[in-house]
Amino acid sequence: MSKPTPISGFPEWTPAQRMIEQYVLDRIRGTFERYGFAPLETRAVEPLDQLLRKGETSKEVYLLRRLQADPDGPTGDDALGLHFDLTVPFARYVLENAGKLQFPFRRYQIQKVWRGERPQEGRYREFLQADIDIVDRDTLAPHHEAEMPLVIGDALRSLPIPPVRIQVNNRKICEGFYRGVGLTDPEAALRAVDKIDKIGPARVADLLAATAGATEAQAKAVLALAEISAPDASFADAVNALGVSHPLLDEGLAELVQVMQTAAEHAPGLCVADLRIARGLDYYTGTVYETQLVGYERFGSICSGGRYDSLASAGAVAFPGVGISIGVTRLLGLLFGAGALTISRPVPTCVVVAVTSEAQRAVSNRVAEALRARGICTEVAPSAAKFGKQIRYAERRGIPYVWFPGTDEGEGEVKDIRTGAQVSARAEVWQPPTADLRPVVS
Amino acid sequence: MSKPTPISGFPEWTPAQRMIEQYVLDRIRGTFERYGFAPLETRAVEPLDQLLRKGETSKEVYLLRRLQADPDGPTGDDALGLHFDLTVPFARYVLENAGKLQFPFRRYQIQKVWRGERPQEGRYREFLQADIDIVDRDTLAPHHEAEMPLVIGDALRSLPIPPVRIQVNNRKICEGFYRGVGLTDPEAALRAVDKIDKIGPARVADLLAATAGATEAQAKAVLALAEISAPDASFADAVNALGVSHPLLDEGLAELVQVMQTAAEHAPGLCVADLRIARGLDYYTGTVYETQLVGYERFGSICSGGRYDSLASAGAVAFPGVGISIGVTRLLGLLFGAGALTISRPVPTCVVVAVTSEAQRAVSNRVAEALRARGICTEVAPSAAKFGKQIRYAERRGIPYVWFPGTDEGEGEVKDIRTGAQVSARAEVWQPPTADLRPVVS
Repeated sequence: MSKPTPISGFPEWTPAQRMIEQYVLDRIRGTFERYGFAPLETRAVEPLDQLLRKGETSKEVYLLRRLQADPDGPTGDDALGLHFDLTVPFARYVLENAGKLQFPFRRYQIQKVWRGERPQEGRYREFLQADIDIVDRDTLAPHHEAEMPLVIGDALRSLPIPPVRIQVNNRKICEGFYRGVGLTDPEAALRAVDKIDKIGPARVADLLAATAGATEAQAKAVLALAEISAPDASFADAVNALGVSHPLLDEGLAELVQVMQTAAEHAPGLCVADLRIARGLDYYTGTVYETQLVGYERFGSICSGGRYDSLASAGAVAFPGVGISIGVTRLLGLLFGAGALTISRPVPTCVVVAVTSEAQRAVSNRVAEALRARGICTEVAPSAAKFGKQIRYAERRGIPYVWFPGTDEGEGEVKDIRTGAQVSARAEVWQPPTADLRPVVS
Repeated sequence: MSKPTPISGFPEWTPAQRMIEQYVLDRIRGTFERYGFAPLETRAVEPLDQLLRKGETSKEVYLLRRLQADPDGPTGDDALGLHFDLTVPFARYVLENAGKLQFPFRRYQIQKVWRGERPQEGRYREFLQADIDIVDRDTLAPHHEAEMPLVIGDALRSLPIPPVRIQVNNRKICEGFYRGVGLTDPEAALRAVDKIDKIGPARVADLLAATAGATEAQAKAVLALAEISAPDASFADAVNALGVSHPLLDEGLAELVQVMQTAAEHAPGLCVADLRIARGLDYYTGTVYETQLVGYERFGSICSGGRYDSLASAGAVAFPGVGISIGVTRLLGLLFGAGALTISRPVPTCVVVAVTSEAQRAVSNRVAEALRARGICTEVAPSAAKFGKQIRYAERRGIPYVWFPGTDEGEGEVKDIRTGAQVSARAEVWQPPTADLRPVVS
């Protein structure tokens, strides 16, 4: 067969990069668990009608079809599609299992998602997300909206990546303000403001006029709101200075003030109130979050989310929630591309046990067993070649030690192939320096 | 919306079950790494022509289609399908990246796979597999076939599950033997023998006559071979006693003897030579493995694999490999169903910090921070309800401790809600018993 080639949008890391990814995921998961989030995985597929319930995502779904299926089979609402995020499946899971869950329900979920995008530079069609959400029955206390950035701040601080800045806004501020200045289609206004980083304020003003029916004065007010940004609760004064009033605006301001005050109290410098943050997906109803890597702002948001009040509701019962999602593939793709993340070797192996002859392979196996029993990752050399060749096997993989079994089975010699230093050692007790035990991510 | 319902074949574990699954995966991964396997993940999709290259799997593939795609778009070889195992994608990965890899290449891969089966009781359409493979360029040393069961034996022994028995055979024995008795279509014979557990020897004999053109004497010989089973290398004597000879048979016997001798040397009792084991997929060419849970033989194999010589080849260069795959979802599904795996609580949380009043939430947050900083999973109570209600929040989740903050911020009282015992404690130093720190799987 001819040599296979990559498929655009479906990234595959090298084993070394995958080791870095696992390190990152272990750290993220550890933080999520320290905050009491329980793990969940949902199936990769949802019925199409679930996927299309909210938001402007219909063009991004991959539908599934069995190769041998009746071509006239289900293509309607029953058709299965791959999930494009972890929030919609989670909302479905909550509705399906509400009777068995304890509320408020705190869960984290780390899974691949898929988007049927057209192939395009830097656009992933398969990528990994790490989400936390808190969902309650009927009402959800606002302090959970303040907790989200703290968890994420902790999780990202535990990683060997640049510091982050979480930008926070509240949709109620935008909607209340837009209504307060007399606009009747706040969603259209929000969609226009969402483009401000891409197209600039002048063209947003045009868009506001065209799609939200804004007068020049209204557009100016909307843009003035979007310009407000503050590292603390002082943003509220700046909003009030614009002289617009609306009950929803007041509600949003109070909520965002609480988020900013909690952040100032527990993680000074982490959050910025940034009133231009909108988030594309339609299901957010309160606080929204985006996250920049300091020094890499051009990368865009690597972690986003918000509060949603009506994503999960069944009849009279609603399950309001708040969640945030780390774009793991996006984050790693950017940092790999910038050469900003490396690992000390591309295999877990710390020791290669040399093999004297194939007939003596069992002796080397026993040395390896003794080392592994104490948690030292060990391979036995694949062939009883000359020792020089066996050392090169280790060298080419960045494995620091080669063990030469002696005649007495427990006793041998271990060589640090970086320095050439070789010492007698017993497999039951020899211990490599901690720095060599596992590959080190930096 | 109406209440969503499960989709047949797409299992979803509860958070408690997912915690057990993560525990199991961490153990498996730890063992794989101790043997020097490096991690890899491949994309979920492969071009259809890759998926259909080998084996009888064409009916099991899920094809992908973008919801908004041109209905006359790619449906031929370029169409993308979800992978149905991890071996075919791995073989493709090796071909694609051969120039960058060090051979022999040892990798593990833990991922979901999908099969477009018709819905059926106990048949998964989405499930998790944990694979190891070793692939070399041109030739692969046979000791790798002996290493596979040792790794798997270690990995499964580290889990809170019943002991396992790995059944080993070698396709060369079957093919050589079948040719030795004069059968010209050994694959048809193998497919018939593969059904022996399902339909019994009498009907296999009929099938051998019908599909492999076997005479009565040939069918009898084939069945006699399939009856051979031994816990050691003595199986070879039993085969030789049947008086059939063929060079391929001799080769297979020598290879299987080596596997059995290595197993006897390093893991007595783990392996059984069982000459009825065939494996359905066509790509195996040498040693094949299946694995039974002792006492749960009715469950069928929970871990299977084998050697493949021609799955990955490009022009004159071949990459022979050997691999084995733990059916994690299958294993857990069976043990969950039998009530044989439990966890001490369904959340990671060890401590709930009570909240005296919403105005004092920051005090509780600081206690939680101090506990988390020392690795203790901690939640802050969701509301400043009466303490009885806050204790019930912990109780309903199986969380063992509730912390009551004092007036001095560091000092408080911690209550073991199982015994009612309450003591003064400081968040910077208090440590729960190790058994309470994390949920315990048993």
